[in-house]
Amino acid sequence: MTDRNIRIQSLDRGAVEDQEIEIVERKGIGHPDSICDGIAEAVSRALAQAYLDRVGKVLHYNTDETQLVAGDAAPAFGGGEVVEPIYILIVGRATKRYEGQEIPVDSIALEAARNYLRENLPNLDLETDVIVDVRLGEGSGDLQEVFSEDGGTVPMANDTSFGVGHAPLSETEQIVYNTERRLIEDFGEDHPALGQDIKVMGKREGSTIDLTVAAALVDTFVPNMEAYEAEIDAIREYVTDLAYEYTDREVRVHVNTADDTAAGAIYLTTTGTSAEQGDDGSVGRGNRANGLITPNRSMSMEATSGKNPVNHIGKIYNLLSTKIAMEVVEEVEGIRDLRVRLLSQIGSPIDQPHVADLHVVTESGYELGDVDPEIRRIVDEGLASVEDVTAAVIRGELSTF
Amino acid sequence: MTDRNIRIQSLDRGAVEDQEIEIVERKGIGHPDSICDGIAEAVSRALAQAYLDRVGKVLHYNTDETQLVAGDAAPAFGGGEVVEPIYILIVGRATKRYEGQEIPVDSIALEAARNYLRENLPNLDLETDVIVDVRLGEGSGDLQEVFSEDGGTVPMANDTSFGVGHAPLSETEQIVYNTERRLIEDFGEDHPALGQDIKVMGKREGSTIDLTVAAALVDTFVPNMEAYEAEIDAIREYVTDLAYEYTDREVRVHVNTADDTAAGAIYLTTTGTSAEQGDDGSVGRGNRANGLITPNRSMSMEATSGKNPVNHIGKIYNLLSTKIAMEVVEEVEGIRDLRVRLLSQIGSPIDQPHVADLHVVTESGYELGDVDPEIRRIVDEGLASVEDVTAAVIRGELSTF
Amino acid sequence: MTDRNIRIQSLDRGAVEDQEIEIVERKGIGHPDSICDGIAEAVSRALAQAYLDRVGKVLHYNTDETQLVAGDAAPAFGGGEVVEPIYILIVGRATKRYEGQEIPVDSIALEAARNYLRENLPNLDLETDVIVDVRLGEGSGDLQEVFSEDGGTVPMANDTSFGVGHAPLSETEQIVYNTERRLIEDFGEDHPALGQDIKVMGKREGSTIDLTVAAALVDTFVPNMEAYEAEIDAIREYVTDLAYEYTDREVRVHVNTADDTAAGAIYLTTTGTSAEQGDDGSVGRGNRANGLITPNRSMSMEATSGKNPVNHIGKIYNLLSTKIAMEVVEEVEGIRDLRVRLLSQIGSPIDQPHVADLHVVTESGYELGDVDPEIRRIVDEGLASVEDVTAAVIRGELSTF
Amino acid sequence: MTDRNIRIQSLDRGAVEDQEIEIVERKGIGHPDSICDGIAEAVSRALAQAYLDRVGKVLHYNTDETQLVAGDAAPAFGGGEVVEPIYILIVGRATKRYEGQEIPVDSIALEAARNYLRENLPNLDLETDVIVDVRLGEGSGDLQEVFSEDGGTVPMANDTSFGVGHAPLSETEQIVYNTERRLIEDFGEDHPALGQDIKVMGKREGSTIDLTVAAALVDTFVPNMEAYEAEIDAIREYVTDLAYEYTDREVRVHVNTADDTAAGAIYLTTTGTSAEQGDDGSVGRGNRANGLITPNRSMSMEATSGKNPVNHIGKIYNLLSTKIAMEVVEEVEGIRDLRVRLLSQIGSPIDQPHVADLHVVTESGYELGDVDPEIRRIVDEGLASVEDVTAAVIRGELSTF
Repeated sequence: MTDRNIRIQSLDRGAVEDQEIEIVERKGIGHPDSICDGIAEAVSRALAQAYLDRVGKVLHYNTDETQLVAGDAAPAFGGGEVVEPIYILIVGRATKRYEGQEIPVDSIALEAARNYLRENLPNLDLETDVIVDVRLGEGSGDLQEVFSEDGGTVPMANDTSFGVGHAPLSETEQIVYNTERRLIEDFGEDHPALGQDIKVMGKREGSTIDLTVAAALVDTFVPNMEAYEAEIDAIREYVTDLAYEYTDREVRVHVNTADDTAAGAIYLTTTGTSAEQGDDGSVGRGNRANGLITPNRSMSMEATSGKNPVNHIGKIYNLLSTKIAMEVVEEVEGIRDLRVRLLSQIGSPIDQPHVADLHVVTESGYELGDVDPEIRRIVDEGLASVEDVTAAVIRGELSTF
Repeated sequence: MTDRNIRIQSLDRGAVEDQEIEIVERKGIGHPDSICDGIAEAVSRALAQAYLDRVGKVLHYNTDETQLVAGDAAPAFGGGEVVEPIYILIVGRATKRYEGQEIPVDSIALEAARNYLRENLPNLDLETDVIVDVRLGEGSGDLQEVFSEDGGTVPMANDTSFGVGHAPLSETEQIVYNTERRLIEDFGEDHPALGQDIKVMGKREGSTIDLTVAAALVDTFVPNMEAYEAEIDAIREYVTDLAYEYTDREVRVHVNTADDTAAGAIYLTTTGTSAEQGDDGSVGRGNRANGLITPNRSMSMEATSGKNPVNHIGKIYNLLSTKIAMEVVEEVEGIRDLRVRLLSQIGSPIDQPHVADLHVVTESGYELGDVDPEIRRIVDEGLASVEDVTAAVIRGELSTF
Repeated sequence: MTDRNIRIQSLDRGAVEDQEIEIVERKGIGHPDSICDGIAEAVSRALAQAYLDRVGKVLHYNTDETQLVAGDAAPAFGGGEVVEPIYILIVGRATKRYEGQEIPVDSIALEAARNYLRENLPNLDLETDVIVDVRLGEGSGDLQEVFSEDGGTVPMANDTSFGVGHAPLSETEQIVYNTERRLIEDFGEDHPALGQDIKVMGKREGSTIDLTVAAALVDTFVPNMEAYEAEIDAIREYVTDLAYEYTDREVRVHVNTADDTAAGAIYLTTTGTSAEQGDDGSVGRGNRANGLITPNRSMSMEATSGKNPVNHIGKIYNLLSTKIAMEVVEEVEGIRDLRVRLLSQIGSPIDQPHVADLHVVTESGYELGDVDPEIRRIVDEGLASVEDVTAAVIRGELSTF
Repeated sequence: MTDRNIRIQSLDRGAVEDQEIEIVERKGIGHPDSICDGIAEAVSRALAQAYLDRVGKVLHYNTDETQLVAGDAAPAFGGGEVVEPIYILIVGRATKRYEGQEIPVDSIALEAARNYLRENLPNLDLETDVIVDVRLGEGSGDLQEVFSEDGGTVPMANDTSFGVGHAPLSETEQIVYNTERRLIEDFGEDHPALGQDIKVMGKREGSTIDLTVAAALVDTFVPNMEAYEAEIDAIREYVTDLAYEYTDREVRVHVNTADDTAAGAIYLTTTGTSAEQGDDGSVGRGNRANGLITPNRSMSMEATSGKNPVNHIGKIYNLLSTKIAMEVVEEVEGIRDLRVRLLSQIGSPIDQPHVADLHVVTESGYELGDVDPEIRRIVDEGLASVEDVTAAVIRGELSTF
């Protein structure tokens, strides 16, 4: 046990699960904001890896400012087209020279972004539908990072910042998160008409959950209005079944409710994302580090995606607090709701936060004293291995949005 | 009294003022994120006014996606220079043609942005230090707004969204907010060396408030290191005095703590903003609609700045809930803490939210029942006059960041 | 015989072949200016074809303003890399809507440009080495072109402009032109190290021709300095042999004379074009329509590449006058040198130039009267079938640079 | 007398003045191509001067690639507006660091361009009508120029290039050139309605000169169609009078012949340049170094504007050959037509061209031998003082377009 400043107390609100109204949102990976998050993080990972490969350590960079300017499209049953390409501008800072060696940061960023798009937006034709531009500046020359794969000294916090994590996910949160994830990963396997831009909004009032799904369909795989409606029905059915895996509450599922099929105004796209027509996007405007937007819970404004995982304290603490919260809930019995906040101390090693501040709602029958020691141990270990977060981010094992 | 769905209940957490740890942040108007917020909102106002002047109603637009790419500078005592201009890309959608009339939305946006910079960043030379670029697309043609100055029907909510407001501000919040505001508006009058990029972080632990101020100084007005240190001292003194106007707690003020004066590494700029060198920015990443980042409170992720104030429900509800919360606290006695949430109902008029959800912490000696009727009345009236928010935004009377 | 205004007279200078000093230049297809010419023309062809396919006629467009901003590269024996991608901005005007139909001109331009690069610069990696951006505006709405594949009325000239063509090519011109062409098409087959950026300058003084070749080599295929020098030797030998096919004059061939092999300063590239490092380019700055820069001859400043081939009179007349000159020389005996100039008449059909102005140098033993009637017939037929030029351009059968 | 290789011979064609058909064109300073030329050269001068001021010598740069993307405008009698700003991208290379000192080349370029626009296009509102963007790369690091105001060694030619100059101007050339110049400098003084975009095309057939003037008028100063027609009449009258100062031939003046006043299709602009609506531009596509496009004469394809005046041999030789030609004609009697060509020798000092090649048409009564010695002397002196050209360019005393 170290002398880390860990404070554990009862949460002075009830569990989110017990609040009367709960709102949860997830912007799917094809949402314009998420596309920016994804590119920013993909570029970040590629740069970190390139630095490790070339100079043995991660140099200074931050690429958390991708901007997407929507295109224009003319979707049509059976296959339309993009009329004006989406424009994506990758913005950030990266060290371009180190000890006489040039690092091709712009080329790396360009390739990483295009690969990300290719893998995650299969209906986007990279030759006609999107322009990827890069404006990476040099960062401050004196900021050279010290992370290497062999380990090393723990970096110092360079800012007063904080991160926050929660566990366990409420039923509504689980449903919202998994709706998007499983639609993409499972349902989409057999339904090529499903696009990647799926926005899920969950609202729970008491014991009724309204789940609103806005799912872009891909016109090539939708020959006519009947087919469109059949897909919507299939989504509704799939999501309804899925939701009842997570809850006994009543669930009402609404899919593409803004459609006006009589007027032909439906959510049909050529590329599977609304970025093709009128929806701009940027980094840090969508999901928090746990993949959700949860106004019932404390959130950090920090854009996690694209930040340097070696010394950007906001990124590290958001990911670490989330990880710690999940580990605690998994290992310790009797916790109904948990919030972990890590507050940095400028100039101190990042494994020594100013305070690790935990608020616990115990299940009935459990006292705080029952769970305190085990929680404290897990937090302490989590902080001690803070650099695992950095490594996991670089390997792409931790999602940031 | 109407049939609006207004729910008032006790807040199931204590007042923020009573929590053990409180974190509050404000990014000043010269912070790169705030510059983007300010430009986005200035462009929005200019467009709304132009539409009113030319076609008598506000047409469809959203300009909430300005991206700032940092420049490069060589500040120096007595006056340095910008080496590479800041690049600002205004992104969004705006209706360019209406009933045969062309609306010069790009020119309007360009002028509004440049005027905003001129007024708010007096040390930025618009001829050498910044490039303002515009990429406004056309929005969906069928979305034509119906707001006119003569009033009209209340718009329908076009999305499921919510807004949140709080009152009163805690002591720490008041201090953080007013530190930046009064430094700019009062202290700066006699201290031209004070730049516009002032970031204030407040952290309260129990009854001690740590106030960390990062203030960019302007090199032209700082002849040497002594002058620099004198300015920092003056800021510290000014802020300390200011803080004690709002609290009896202990306050510790830290100004430009990252400085290493021995090494000459100080927060000196040519233009008064860190955007001149390495700090990128974008809309919606900084302050919430009440001017603060408050992780102890429920926040909306919505970028309020730049959104169309006629029918963007997230913007309207964030501003309205904040306005209602402030009015309630001003008019009703006995409220220690109040949270107002407005949740929209797609397809219903925006003055009829799905629910107006209020959580109250009463002062000791007051019961919820004492304050409920008066609160209810204020909320009801606030909703009834929702279009006042739109008008006030267009007139620039409501700050969005 | 028509009433076209055709004037044929003796050229009042000697044949270029007989002048004391002659200068001829060709920028190869990988030269930054030629890349722009090539893209501009590829985009033009793609647009013309798309208009024909979609609306049955070619609508108004001009895409003659591509700008290339050079990248940065770190070539190295055995394979280097591009450090900062080349940036290519496609500029122009194109009709985006026609009778309710949207034409995806930006997407078409983007695809055509990328395909052009892929086909013509095989060593350029489109995922890392180049950014293609598009800014196509709408042209004047009232300018709708009337060319259709079924023929139709002859367009009117919309400008006072002229075109000029010459034949036959002088020996030096033949050598310069074919050096680049045959290096690319023949020598390059077995020499992958040969890049696409080959600049050939021919200077003839009396009976001595100095041929200066600057050829970019591709680093992947050049393991070391010996290999480099061997390639240079092979090029010199190949070009020398080639040159003597066209002349009995003395030819001196200089390849990459700016190299300083001792200092390691050689013409080595990663992509085969100097655009990768420091050489910008734009349309219309390089070769004239016959593929050469010939200061000994009358030239048009008109940028032929990218112009609309239906009604851009400068483009059509440059191509047509060149075609006529070549046909005359092929069919008519006794011509040593020929210049064809076509001058347009605003508002008249383009097959009725203000004047077709031919200057002839006959071979000894021939009088102007001998050749006049046949020349006149060929010119008349050429003008009568002016629309063949348009069709040939769209099919890609006529080179413009 | 030196050993410079100067060759003087009779021109084997007649004087241009004696040719049957002559075509001459000038694009005025407000033409989109000329705007680019002007900006490129203004940026070049500003950079050269900044280098001299800061490091005492001119460092490596070339800024000869400005690209203009036309805007969109809605001109109207009495005052219209720009709907979409003109976009100008300044492209080139410039040394950004020298012996530890940073040179703010991007800021210098931006300011120079904006100042140039302000001074030369008084009707262009820089706050609403134009976006100036900059993408200057670093040039090759090893190319550091050696020009200093104190003089120094003569630079070496870095390329095989040539320049060409002519004198005297033919009557048609004088008329075309002065039409634009005097309209701007004299007529415009009292006629604010005259825009800056004036294109003059002169065509002489035998002894008849057709002068076609396309002059943009500025809508603010044109209240109605009568006023428009009155301005056109005034221009026609002014130009006609002007033309007869230079010739006894018949002159026919046509102003804005493409107008269709009945249909309201006239050449009315808001800013005085066609760049506001649909006409793109770039460097080096318009006037040659003597301000004219003269297909009857030998021309260089070289873009003179924006090139580094210290060592860009094409720029220097074009300007020097023009200067020499004019000096010869001024000082030597009996010359009817003169062409000066300077051909560089890679690796030799630029005052030692490979050949200075002069072709003379003497007036009747003069033999070549009469004028040869004096011509030779002037050429020799001109070459000896080649660096005066560089200095004059930097001081802005030599026009490049």
